[in-house]
Amino acid sequence: MNNQFKTSVYRKESFNAAHRLHNPNWDDKKNQMIFGKCNNANFHGHNYELEVRVTGFCDAETGYVIDVKILSDIIQHAVINKFDHKNLNIEVEEFKNLNPTAENIAFVIYNRLVNRLPNDLDLKIRLYETRKNYVEYPA
Amino acid sequence: MNNQFKTSVYRKESFNAAHRLHNPNWDDKKNQMIFGKCNNANFHGHNYELEVRVTGFCDAETGYVIDVKILSDIIQHAVINKFDHKNLNIEVEEFKNLNPTAENIAFVIYNRLVNRLPNDLDLKIRLYETRKNYVEYPA
Amino acid sequence: MNNQFKTSVYRKESFNAAHRLHNPNWDDKKNQMIFGKCNNANFHGHNYELEVRVTGFCDAETGYVIDVKILSDIIQHAVINKFDHKNLNIEVEEFKNLNPTAENIAFVIYNRLVNRLPNDLDLKIRLYETRKNYVEYPA
Amino acid sequence: MNNQFKTSVYRKESFNAAHRLHNPNWDDKKNQMIFGKCNNANFHGHNYELEVRVTGFCDAETGYVIDVKILSDIIQHAVINKFDHKNLNIEVEEFKNLNPTAENIAFVIYNRLVNRLPNDLDLKIRLYETRKNYVEYPA
Amino acid sequence: MNNQFKTSVYRKESFNAAHRLHNPNWDDKKNQMIFGKCNNANFHGHNYELEVRVTGFCDAETGYVIDVKILSDIIQHAVINKFDHKNLNIEVEEFKNLNPTAENIAFVIYNRLVNRLPNDLDLKIRLYETRKNYVEYPA
Amino acid sequence: MNNQFKTSVYRKESFNAAHRLHNPNWDDKKNQMIFGKCNNANFHGHNYELEVRVTGFCDAETGYVIDVKILSDIIQHAVINKFDHKNLNIEVEEFKNLNPTAENIAFVIYNRLVNRLPNDLDLKIRLYETRKNYVEYPA
Repeated sequence: MNNQFKTSVYRKESFNAAHRLHNPNWDDKKNQMIFGKCNNANFHGHNYELEVRVTGFCDAETGYVIDVKILSDIIQHAVINKFDHKNLNIEVEEFKNLNPTAENIAFVIYNRLVNRLPNDLDLKIRLYETRKNYVEYPA
Repeated sequence: MNNQFKTSVYRKESFNAAHRLHNPNWDDKKNQMIFGKCNNANFHGHNYELEVRVTGFCDAETGYVIDVKILSDIIQHAVINKFDHKNLNIEVEEFKNLNPTAENIAFVIYNRLVNRLPNDLDLKIRLYETRKNYVEYPA
Repeated sequence: MNNQFKTSVYRKESFNAAHRLHNPNWDDKKNQMIFGKCNNANFHGHNYELEVRVTGFCDAETGYVIDVKILSDIIQHAVINKFDHKNLNIEVEEFKNLNPTAENIAFVIYNRLVNRLPNDLDLKIRLYETRKNYVEYPA
Repeated sequence: MNNQFKTSVYRKESFNAAHRLHNPNWDDKKNQMIFGKCNNANFHGHNYELEVRVTGFCDAETGYVIDVKILSDIIQHAVINKFDHKNLNIEVEEFKNLNPTAENIAFVIYNRLVNRLPNDLDLKIRLYETRKNYVEYPA
Repeated sequence: MNNQFKTSVYRKESFNAAHRLHNPNWDDKKNQMIFGKCNNANFHGHNYELEVRVTGFCDAETGYVIDVKILSDIIQHAVINKFDHKNLNIEVEEFKNLNPTAENIAFVIYNRLVNRLPNDLDLKIRLYETRKNYVEYPA
Repeated sequence: MNNQFKTSVYRKESFNAAHRLHNPNWDDKKNQMIFGKCNNANFHGHNYELEVRVTGFCDAETGYVIDVKILSDIIQHAVINKFDHKNLNIEVEEFKNLNPTAENIAFVIYNRLVNRLPNDLDLKIRLYETRKNYVEYPA
């Protein structure tokens, strides 16, 4: 047998966080008009479900693209420990100047993970904000 | 046919909220010891899934225990509109003096709904804080 | 070890059917007012998820309350073969004179199953009409 | 930070509808042979789950590819209001001359949505007919 | 507010295990006839989903029936560490003389947990062997 | 209407199997270090969820890319009947010399299916080992 194509490996993790959507360059009225109830100054929150996809060739000796235990540890260390049971706007460095929309959270998670993975592996992030709303980066 | 037993009708709704667990009669150290990361002063949040169970006899003319459209409107008005995209500790009256654990949120929701339903219907609340943690009131 | 309490066994099946809600004793206006879009004369449909619960003592030799293969065959024969890919109002005997609400469908399924099971086993039906609306009979 | 790649935003909606599979150019025997129980003249039905994927660059001011509230309104207006609690064969214009297979329903939904979205956004439809059968258009 | 009724708290955990169904008092033919493919001498396996329900009164100071972190640790120590990635028939003491049907696994888990919990709390186990087959003990 | 793009059709099936991860070229210590609890000599097991994606143009007469009943039969015959309630290492030919990681199982399933499908259809396999770990081949 000769495994000629790449394989993707997925790992799901989750974190529970508070956030609000807000653009500091806009006045309250515009923030309220654009972000609606997501702009609530007292925050609201979500159970975020994070799906990390890593793509590459299978190692012939292990049968793994990547050991999911190692992948899970990387996600835990770089993302979950920093985001879980936190207020994203206040307690996560990147969101001090970036609106924590699902799109931007996925983008931040991608950047936290991409340099911790071997260079020959491709990375994609899917983030579920709710069962009905989710995003994927890069598309 | 003679429908001799009671039937239960379930309706699921959801709300996304921020909260923290905290007992004001305790010092910070004890709050941290008991509630751990749930005690974070900046709040965290959840996608709460709410399951409302109403039990009674079926009406022979409609075939309904209760019209779920009416049940959904009652839940929307009494609970979702007040809890969704809110900070439970700050913005929901009952939690100004009550710790918003899943147990207490279910208890508060029960009390918000029980008087809005016909007297001959029994009510039970199940509340999912996460996929792995949920409560039921009354048991 | 001495297994002193009863155990419940659950089996999930599903069927896809068309139906409409309608009371022939009412005029069109009242049917429309009470049943709304569920009264559509051309029918609509659902993926019904059926959960059958059977309760009794475990048999010491098999370790089964009931062999779920046998339970599944009973459900298949008495319910799924008659309901799946059918129009409930037109093609299922009991609904020629009974409104196929979720409550009544659960009641009909209970009655189709109860006599096909051993007398010492209790039966309960849960029927999901959608992910958000479901019923249980008997309560 | 410089968000160099495109992001996808997903929105899930649902509708409950009746349908049957039938080719008017074939006789009853061939329709029955090809479409089996899905050919039932009295219709059957499904809880269709619709996943709409929209791909484009994130807006720097909002942090959105598209406001999901706006996306949800477009889907509601162009699809759900016309398909939910309907008989697809009888009540949806496009299926008067098109067999409502999952493939064709996804295709019709794509065409209903594509012109209502900004030109620089890509669109993809995933439609679940059941938990086990679903389609994606375009592939 | 006076919380007059009991509340139930649920915690979900999971374990992945191999097993086979077999009664050593029967010959191979009878074992095969009764247990079918579950009797395979080389074993098969499942992702078991375990739901533990604990019922009691809420503590006024914590707002907890039981701290789910503590409950989770008890389940981890008494069940998951002993069952996960194990062969139930060979490696779990109780199944050396007890057929590991879902009913019996739930019974064994109940007995492993009941004495580790405070006396004033009621315990119930639900165990999912697959998405379609699950049991509850005590009923 | 002119269906200019390809459509994908998905079919989900499942099988319950035992396996262990092991490289016969390594000693026990290295196998234990790399594969951890998955290396258990007595096996463990999973409820594998298999998602088969087939992509091609829709047939104008049927409205199908492929009849899912036919697709399901192919999967049943080539995969499920050979994998379900089996020990993958011992009873499935390909794993006698190939470590049954999720990556390799997806690869084997791909090769079992690809020649049984029409040449103009593309094939992709997604395999869920658990709710949190899954793979896709080819990527």
